[in-house]
Amino acid sequence: MDTERTRIRRLPEKTRTDVADLHAVLDAAYVTHVAIAEDAQPYAVPMACARRGDELLLHGSSGSRLMRAMADGAPVCATVTLLDALVLARSAFESSMNYRSAMVLGRARALEGDDLLDGLRVLTEHLTPGRWDRLRAPLRKELAATLLVALPLDEWSVKVSDKFPADEPEDLDTPIWSGVVPLATTVGAPLDAPNLRVPHTPDADVRAITEQVARSVAAPPSPDADH
Amino acid sequence: MDTERTRIRRLPEKTRTDVADLHAVLDAAYVTHVAIAEDAQPYAVPMACARRGDELLLHGSSGSRLMRAMADGAPVCATVTLLDALVLARSAFESSMNYRSAMVLGRARALEGDDLLDGLRVLTEHLTPGRWDRLRAPLRKELAATLLVALPLDEWSVKVSDKFPADEPEDLDTPIWSGVVPLATTVGAPLDAPNLRVPHTPDADVRAITEQVARSVAAPPSPDADH
Repeated sequence: MDTERTRIRRLPEKTRTDVADLHAVLDAAYVTHVAIAEDAQPYAVPMACARRGDELLLHGSSGSRLMRAMADGAPVCATVTLLDALVLARSAFESSMNYRSAMVLGRARALEGDDLLDGLRVLTEHLTPGRWDRLRAPLRKELAATLLVALPLDEWSVKVSDKFPADEPEDLDTPIWSGVVPLATTVGAPLDAPNLRVPHTPDADVRAITEQVARSVAAPPSPDADH
Repeated sequence: MDTERTRIRRLPEKTRTDVADLHAVLDAAYVTHVAIAEDAQPYAVPMACARRGDELLLHGSSGSRLMRAMADGAPVCATVTLLDALVLARSAFESSMNYRSAMVLGRARALEGDDLLDGLRVLTEHLTPGRWDRLRAPLRKELAATLLVALPLDEWSVKVSDKFPADEPEDLDTPIWSGVVPLATTVGAPLDAPNLRVPHTPDADVRAITEQVARSVAAPPSPDADH
């Protein structure tokens, strides 16, 4: 839902209003930056995240004071930014980045009991697909040390920049290359834990993570410049 | 400088206090998330960034109200997070991510005149090394539409997680692979601007960006578990 606070005033042509676009950005993220204020000082804190339906789950420790403030309902903003490309124009001014970014405003609530367990399942499956059912169940003391909060996806905005450079006509003869240099996340070769006991292999885990990461890659830029 | 506000209470073994570690994290980032509050609502806003000596430069538009509030000296927090790996433990509780994260608190000032021009040079060279001298000089109207602020690197913290999973001894026989799956940013094949005029090639630009991105890759995890 778009509100006066989330309305995108700058570069409104980059705005996306379909909830599917919001879900796509959040589902491609492992980490979100959560803004939360303490007295007059705002903090931006990185947290693991996963979407569960119309909520964004945020993971932290019950020992963190900012997490506790968030669980107590302080107003927060969770922002996900996926950097997709560097945009090399013929001028510094038109040079930019392509990205997908989602901002969610609201107040979160702490998950408890079976809801907490389900949230941990969703988060674990988001980060390491297919592992939850193969891991032992969380212990009572582990659940007590875990704070997982849910931020409703009610008030949000999504901004997508996916363009080629929009140079002014008088710059087109500048003797310099212009275009888009894509950036993407890739999965490296897995490293066995030093105390790993044979014969476990990482093949299934790495394949599932690679597929998850591949789903996060941006579409190529559209050929129409934005001015 | 470490203060009561930036002291890392959670997982203090991950703390880095050497300013070289701060610089390394900031120099590996293209984007930072800036927390800034408006009334009671904090916002986390992604901004292009580049370090210039003992300042972090943040780039925005002079039309953005949050950028203007920042230029007017509102307290902010700029956080950079580099996600380096997924850590697959034998339990959901010990599964985590490896990352490098830097948080800078303070008040920024807007750059002006030659200082603004120098800041744009630093930012452009950080994002697209070697291009500044080949691009035309910014126009007066472009400088007027650009807001570049400098946040001093006075009050900050750095947290680095670079470990293998720290499973409990009783979990070591769980029949599941355990280890680290590295994630890294890679540079894709460049895409010519549709209005590119021959014979410019992207080779030098892509090579410079690839070298810059390669410098951002994390070291492999250390073999000692953190508990």
